[in-house]
This record gives sequence, C-alpha cells and structure tokens, in this order.
Amino acid sequence: MSKQAIGVVGLAVMGRNLALNIESRGHAVSVYNRSREKTDDLMAEHPDKKLVPSYTLEEFVGSLEKPRRILLMVKAGQGTDATIDSLRPLLEKGDILIDGGNTHFTDTIRRNTDLAKSGLHFIGTGVSGGEEGALKGPSIMPGGQKEAYDLVAPILTEIAAKAPDGEPCVAYMGPDGAGHYVKMVHNGIEYGDMQLIAESYDVLKRVAGLSNEELGKVYVEWNKGELDSYLIEITSKIFSKKDEETGKDLVDVILDRAAQKGTGKWTSQNALDLGAPLPLITEAVFARVLSSLKDQRVEASKQLKGPSPKFDGDRNAFVESVRRALFLSKIVSYAQGFAQLRAASEEYKWDLQYGQIAKIFRAGCIIRAGFLQKITDAYKTNADLHNLLLDPYFSDIAAKYQDALREVVVAAVKAGVPVPAFSSAVAYYDSYRSETLPANLVQAQRDFFGAHTFERVDKKGSFHADWA
Amino acid sequence: MSKQAIGVVGLAVMGRNLALNIESRGHAVSVYNRSREKTDDLMAEHPDKKLVPSYTLEEFVGSLEKPRRILLMVKAGQGTDATIDSLRPLLEKGDILIDGGNTHFTDTIRRNTDLAKSGLHFIGTGVSGGEEGALKGPSIMPGGQKEAYDLVAPILTEIAAKAPDGEPCVAYMGPDGAGHYVKMVHNGIEYGDMQLIAESYDVLKRVAGLSNEELGKVYVEWNKGELDSYLIEITSKIFSKKDEETGKDLVDVILDRAAQKGTGKWTSQNALDLGAPLPLITEAVFARVLSSLKDQRVEASKQLKGPSPKFDGDRNAFVESVRRALFLSKIVSYAQGFAQLRAASEEYKWDLQYGQIAKIFRAGCIIRAGFLQKITDAYKTNADLHNLLLDPYFSDIAAKYQDALREVVVAAVKAGVPVPAFSSAVAYYDSYRSETLPANLVQAQRDFFGAHTFERVDKKGSFHADWA
Repeated sequence: MSKQAIGVVGLAVMGRNLALNIESRGHAVSVYNRSREKTDDLMAEHPDKKLVPSYTLEEFVGSLEKPRRILLMVKAGQGTDATIDSLRPLLEKGDILIDGGNTHFTDTIRRNTDLAKSGLHFIGTGVSGGEEGALKGPSIMPGGQKEAYDLVAPILTEIAAKAPDGEPCVAYMGPDGAGHYVKMVHNGIEYGDMQLIAESYDVLKRVAGLSNEELGKVYVEWNKGELDSYLIEITSKIFSKKDEETGKDLVDVILDRAAQKGTGKWTSQNALDLGAPLPLITEAVFARVLSSLKDQRVEASKQLKGPSPKFDGDRNAFVESVRRALFLSKIVSYAQGFAQLRAASEEYKWDLQYGQIAKIFRAGCIIRAGFLQKITDAYKTNADLHNLLLDPYFSDIAAKYQDALREVVVAAVKAGVPVPAFSSAVAYYDSYRSETLPANLVQAQRDFFGAHTFERVDKKGSFHADWA
Repeated sequence: MSKQAIGVVGLAVMGRNLALNIESRGHAVSVYNRSREKTDDLMAEHPDKKLVPSYTLEEFVGSLEKPRRILLMVKAGQGTDATIDSLRPLLEKGDILIDGGNTHFTDTIRRNTDLAKSGLHFIGTGVSGGEEGALKGPSIMPGGQKEAYDLVAPILTEIAAKAPDGEPCVAYMGPDGAGHYVKMVHNGIEYGDMQLIAESYDVLKRVAGLSNEELGKVYVEWNKGELDSYLIEITSKIFSKKDEETGKDLVDVILDRAAQKGTGKWTSQNALDLGAPLPLITEAVFARVLSSLKDQRVEASKQLKGPSPKFDGDRNAFVESVRRALFLSKIVSYAQGFAQLRAASEEYKWDLQYGQIAKIFRAGCIIRAGFLQKITDAYKTNADLHNLLLDPYFSDIAAKYQDALREVVVAAVKAGVPVPAFSSAVAYYDSYRSETLPANLVQAQRDFFGAHTFERVDKKGSFHADWA
C-alpha cells in the first residue's frame, strides 16, 4: 500500500476543510478523528476524494511517509496535549507535528521544547481565514524548527492563499512559538479594525444621521480607496442585507452584544507583560466586554445624563472626515501591533520579519487589505523601523489626516457618542509625538510616597528627594 | 523564657517597620532575617525596643506562643515559597502564616490551599502605605481562613491606620486570595488616580499655560474640596519643591519616564480574564509604558505633526472645568475598579464587602481620600449596586460634571495634548449609558466571516445568516 505525505488529526470544520484543501492540490491525505463519526461523515460526503481514513492512531501513523507530517486540528489546550501524548510513542525521530489550532504561544514554546527532547519536530502555525479560507486558501503563519518547516513548506505553499501579485501567503515566522504569536497579534489587530469600523458606523449614524442605505454606499465607496479591505467590503454588504423574517435591515435586528473568544485578550495581556503600549486594541477588547453588559446599559441609559446630539455640519465633508479618522486610527493600531511584534521578537529571540508578516496578511486572512503592502514597503526601506508612524508614507498621512481624526473625536465627545478606539488613537498619536509627557509628576509622586527614586533630565543616575 | 505573640520574617524596610509598629503597641516581637546583618542592624539601631532576635528558624519558631503567628515580609515570588518550605516542617496544626508582601493573588490561593492540607492557616494580606505607613499605620487587607484572621485581628487592628472617624483601616476581606486581590485593585486604582492627576497637570500647563507656582496653588485649592486626598496633597507640595542643585523647580528636573512595578499590569490582565471592563486604569498603565519610550518620543516629536495649542478661554473657568473633569474621571475609574471587585467576588466566591473595602482605604494607603466615604455610603444604600455610576450621589455628579469633562477632552484633543485617561473616561461613560452600541455590526461581521452566530433583539436564541 502506498503511503501518504501528510495526515490530519481532528476533523471538525477547520480540520476537514484543510484536508480537502490539501487533497485538492493533488495529494492523498490520511485522516483521523477520535470519534469515528466525523471520519465516516467526511468519507461519505466525499467518496471520490483521495482521503485515506484511519480508525486508530497506530493505523494512521502507519499510513504516513517518513518523516511523518501530521497536522493537528484539535481543540486547543488539553485536547492538544492529550493528542500529542497519544501520538508520541508511535512517532520516530525527525517526524513533524504541526499544530494548526488557536494555541497560546507559550503552550507552543513548551511543546516545541519538550518534543525536541525526543527528536520530534513541532510546528505551531497560525491559520487565518475561517472555514472558507481553510478550504480555499488561508493565510498561514508557521513557527518552529526551520528544518522541519522546510519539509512541510511545499504543501503549505500550495494550500495557502495567493496575494494579488500571486505570492503565496505563507512564510516561516521563526522558532517555537513565533507562528502562533503572529496569529495572536493578527487577531488583536482584527479586534481593533472591527471596533474602529463599528465606531465609524456609530458616529455616522448617531452624529450625522446616516441611514443604513447611506451607510452601505459609504462603505462601498471607502472600499475603493485607501481603506480597501475585506472587513470594509463585508461591512458594505451587511448594510444591504434584509432579515428574512421581518423584512427589516438585518443589522438592526442583531443584538448589540459582542462576543470575544480570547485571542484579543491574549494580545493585550502579553502587551502588558512586554511593556509594549497597545491601548487601541485593548480598548477594542474592553468595548466588546462592555457591549455584553446590555442589561446594565439599558438601566444606565435611563439614569445617566448626556448631551443631545445635533449635527449642523456638512454631511459629505463629515463622511470624508470619518474616513480619514478611520484610516489614521487603523494606522495607529497597526503601528502598536507591529511595535508589539518587535518587542516580542526581542524578548523571545525570534528575529521576526515584519515586512514579510504584513505580506502574508495580504490575502486569506480577515485583516487582508491593500494598505498592508505599505507596511511591507516601510520595512523594506528600514528593517529597523521602531514604529510605523515614523515611516514617511505613514507620517505624511498622519500629517494630513490628524485634523480629521480630531474633528471626529471632538464631534463624538460633544454628541455623547462613545469612540473609545478613535480617542485612544488620538491619545497615542499625541503621546508618541510628545517630547515631554507629565510622567515627571508621576515619578515625583512615586518618590514622594514610596522613595522609588527618579531620573533627572540633566544627568544620569537615580535620585531621591527629601520631600517632607 | 517568655514567648512572643507574633514574629516577623524578613527585615527589609517594610518588615522592620511593621515589626517596630507592632512593638510600639506594647508587644514583644520575634524577628528573623535570612542573612543576620539585617537583624543585627535592627537590634543595634533599636537596643531599647522589645525585639527578640533569632538567628535560626528553629530558634525563631521556638520563641513564639502557640498558635504561632508569623508575618512573612520577604520578596514576593520564589522567596515566599522558599521561606514557607523552610518553615513548614517546624510548624504545627493551627499555626498561622501571614504573607504581607505584594503577592499575586493566584499564588496566595495556591499557598492557602496547599498549607491547609497540613492544617496550617495562611493569610495573604495587602499592606498599603509604603515605609511610613508600615511604621505608623498602614491600611491592611487580609484574606484567608476567617478563624485564623480572628486570631491575628487584635494585633492588625492595633497597628492599622485610623480613619478620621477613628475606625481602624483593617477588615477581613474574604477567603484565600481575597486580601491580595483587593490590594492589587487598590494599586490599579492608584495608577488611574496618578495618571488622571498627571493629565490635569499637562492640560493646565500645555493648554492653559499655568506656571508651576500657579499649579501648586490650584492643587492646594482642589485639596480643600471634593478632590481632598493624599495624592492631591502631595501633588500640591511637589510644585513648590526646589531642586537643591540647580535651584530650579524640582518637577522640571525630573525625567518624564515613569516606571511600573507590576500590580497595575496585573489588575488589567485580570480584568481581561474576568471580562470586566477596566479601560481607564489600563490606559494609565500603557501611559507609563509609553512615557518610558523617551528616545522614540523625542525622535517622533520632530517628525509627527500636530496642532499648535493656543488658549483663548477664561483661565479660571477652565481650571474649574479641569477640576470637574478630574473628579468625574476619578469616579469613572473607581466605578470600573469596584465593578471588577464585584466580578472577582463572583468568579472566586469571595463575598467581598465593597463598602467596607472603601472604608479601609480611607487612611493609611496611597489612595486615601475623602470621597471614599461616598462609596461606602453607596453600598450601604444598595449592597447589590452593579456600578457606582448608578448610585444617585455619583450619577448626580456625572450629570453636573460631564459637560466639563467633554470640554476638557475637546480642548486637549484640539490642542494636541494627550489625555488617554480623560478620554477613556468619557468613552466609558458614554458607552455605559448607551442603550445601543454598534456591537450589532461587530456580531454581523463575525457571523459573516466565521459563522459565529448572533443574538436577535426580538427573540432568544443563536442565529446565523446566509450573507453571501
């Protein structure tokens, strides 16, 4: 019997779609699932595909060419550890496990280090693009042993999304947890993008009074310019979708209570650990949490006073200001996210290639957007760039658009419409460009009450004053 | 030989000051330090005090009345575990270890559970007030077995700070990690308070052009009213302090690079875990981190454009607006912090008493302030209050001061002066009082790209639309 070049463990929707994607490129694929129903379902639905089912792990491992390439698509966490424990005694030196789940990067570092002791390779890879991406071409962010990556690169390259210029959206991210880390930050950035779009919607609706129909047209237009992106595209479509039951605009029927699955939270928590400022994405995470307190908000809306929004400006001009505010805020958000990647690369010794990361985000994944090419270009010009805002392309946009961002924040604050991410973007922009910040007072206070000492502007060292 | 009612392990500044505090109330205190120098120094400096030194742990444990009460004032983390491991074989059922370090509450939960298996009691207690507080009267937040607390309560009550009405600033917080948790949130709130004061300073200086002398007077005045607090008091003093070397105002000589030791970060990270919105304090933590990027800021200040601040309003009126903005933002910050305490109490089953917590913050600790009494009153009126903003005292202030907060944020945003915490306060206030938020769009997007489903406004259940 001939053996397969790769096998997939875990046949929930992401696993089965990746298996089908690999198969569609001309490879026979071994498939295994802990409960046999999922395997049977897959085989029944695709009787003509080159999928080779196994019903025991022994059989599955035996069906693979050496070194074995095994893609784990199981529930992240204990499920991954349990699967690895079951597989480990069946594997040989040089075999490669690839975890394609939404795993916390510290787990990936631990597993990579642990399996390396037995000579086993472990690749942790981000896979972005949802169900459809998995089937037709996701963005893939693998990290682990480089020599192991090289052995799976041909297949990953075949199944990856292709950017507009034809380049596959997969690249080696770095050792151990680098791939899952990049995926985590991708998701954090996705939280930021979605919150910013939500605020643009809220401001256009509640400040300037745009209807859903008008909103739909605005996002269609925006998608033709600098904001060209998957998320703006689907937003434009959302506003024209009708609810089949009531005939109303579906967006108005959806409850304003957003869920979050954890990767945004992880990004913020790690930013705090690294000491990398990530206020905008963190505001986005908290905005989702706050939205979930619907009952309290309904109660509070009756008790807490605010201004009565009234808009007397030029609507078209305001729409353009909101577009500029959104684009500059998006740039600020990516500047924070990429600065965090840099801090992580230094902390975990990964040598991340920021330009390449932006490149593989160009297709397949949720944050795919035209402007990612500008990020790639910025790092091509200066591989050591500390912050995207310091790249001329982005600082020029900031110079041109900052007035609009201020105008929109001012209008929203005056109207009582919350813009946590827009206003966090302004605050970050103004903090980052402030030669002096009031942190001298904070240091004075800390020295006053806790003798924590301070630095001076005129010489090196730690100093303490007798404040009493 | 007579035995002592309590002993202290670890004689760095906090440990020795607590030992001296206890001694000053008429108790003989056993003292021990791993390296004997610190013990010898303490004895040499205080030959007339009832301090009983030991140079081995055996001797130390032997010098204590049973059940033994041992206050651990060692470096939090491995130092605490190492000390516990050394003490454990020397202790007997019913003995009480009290960890007074800045320990993460999850470590306290672990140690409490572990030691309970040997019948040992473990109290984790927050101690706030710095060196001076430790010596003269700190605010004390103990958590652990109630029966163990009862055995140390008399001594803790004697050494605690006394509020203006004479009540001691100590109370039983709850089981296992409750005490260290409350201390953590106290420190997070302290970060928020300090950042808000720093922003008030920056706005008054950079927007309205106040001199240090004028600033000093402003904070003196503010300390007489609603903002009456330790941090405002020391701020007022900071502005009149001269640098002995240069003769300049000391605040201008201090480098604007703020440090952070981790408890603020922990508060934000736990808020993210709990799903409790804590944007203001988190912005404060990130503001410190951002201040530390001094070199980048200096560079960015040359490249990134902003408006030129010019102020043409009434200065006195603006000062009053900033005072109101500061007070309302402070209320928003405490509303978030106390809502987090509530979320934690539910998650960890602690039955925290919010009014009592505010009460023991009234003296001894860094955030001591007159308005804490209002928080105690609010929970007395409604023990089940979901959010401080819903209490009539606080919602009335919000109604009166929200215009001023908006005015200050608008002025700062227009002037290019960063106000991350002020603007986060407005955003939270407006989000919390928004019956509808744009999270319906976020849910539509999530269902569009990932089939994550959504809820509807008109009926219960999870729904998925065919968006394509």
